[in-house]
Amino acid sequence: MAPLAPRTGDAVFANVERVNAELFTLTYGAIVRQLLTDLEEVEEVNKQLDQMGYNIGVRLIDEFLAKSGVSSCVDFRETADVIAKVGFKMFLGVTASVTNWDAEGTSCSLVLDDNPLVDFVELPDTCQGLYYCNILSGVIRGALEMVSMKTEVTWIRDMLHGDDAYELRVKLLKQVPEEYPYKDDE
Amino acid sequence: MAPLAPRTGDAVFANVERVNAELFTLTYGAIVRQLLTDLEEVEEVNKQLDQMGYNIGVRLIDEFLAKSGVSSCVDFRETADVIAKVGFKMFLGVTASVTNWDAEGTSCSLVLDDNPLVDFVELPDTCQGLYYCNILSGVIRGALEMVSMKTEVTWIRDMLHGDDAYELRVKLLKQVPEEYPYKDDE
Repeated sequence: MAPLAPRTGDAVFANVERVNAELFTLTYGAIVRQLLTDLEEVEEVNKQLDQMGYNIGVRLIDEFLAKSGVSSCVDFRETADVIAKVGFKMFLGVTASVTNWDAEGTSCSLVLDDNPLVDFVELPDTCQGLYYCNILSGVIRGALEMVSMKTEVTWIRDMLHGDDAYELRVKLLKQVPEEYPYKDDE
Repeated sequence: MAPLAPRTGDAVFANVERVNAELFTLTYGAIVRQLLTDLEEVEEVNKQLDQMGYNIGVRLIDEFLAKSGVSSCVDFRETADVIAKVGFKMFLGVTASVTNWDAEGTSCSLVLDDNPLVDFVELPDTCQGLYYCNILSGVIRGALEMVSMKTEVTWIRDMLHGDDAYELRVKLLKQVPEEYPYKDDE
């Protein structure tokens, strides 16, 4: 395939079915509040959001492949570009930038200046350890696992914690290009 | 104001920020699964979804009033039309029809043929009492309460229960037109 996705994120986003962003933001907020009430420990909420995201990602990849025109990427660098420019745009309506590559090309950062999940959100003092957007790291991990890439995705910067942007570190742990669909048997 | 909203739902929907509908559907599914796991009783899940919807509705009404150009409705009939044609369109991208008015004009049905919340959903046998979309009834109740209408909103038909459409019965219990914003002190 071409070095970048055949359709831009804007073109794809214009053609998918969409719902109101504020409804989504408030609905996501309702989940987080519910988990905080039910699970009590912030660390457990982080885990649960990541797991929910993972479950969403393993299904969302089908919509992504069907609608984006992306078939496969030549390497992890291209994969990261596609996530940042097409994936984020297609699902959330925003794009990310890809920065801070390591020398091996297996680890990079996705930086978001705009993040529709956090409109109207402020963390109370009791929730300072909460990664409010942890569902996103799970979605990326789940989606990539379905296209043979096992990754670790962690937050480096979070504006709700006072940082100047949202930065997700994506590290490729293992790639099994010949098996598709890849089933993780762990 | 004019008998119908000055802007159609289509025009409003085209101009609000949006996210991918499948992401929303899967995220909503993740909430319902989480509640089923945490609360166990289907009846409790119904209540919790309704409460979450209520909390969303009391905030979403601001976005609705700001973006739709709707200011106030002359009566409950017009309110129901605006919810069906502008509200549903603006937030979910679908419209509802308004039917089965009672003689007093205080009770009607909103019928949805298409419902983006339920794509890919099938209820397992253990969840037959679940009103999967109960968040919607809560949103309507919450939003109307902020514009001085206390309502009761219940499901009459549900395609996940084998019916041929989604039908929500909306009953006006009390209207306090002069107070705005109306605070319910119950």
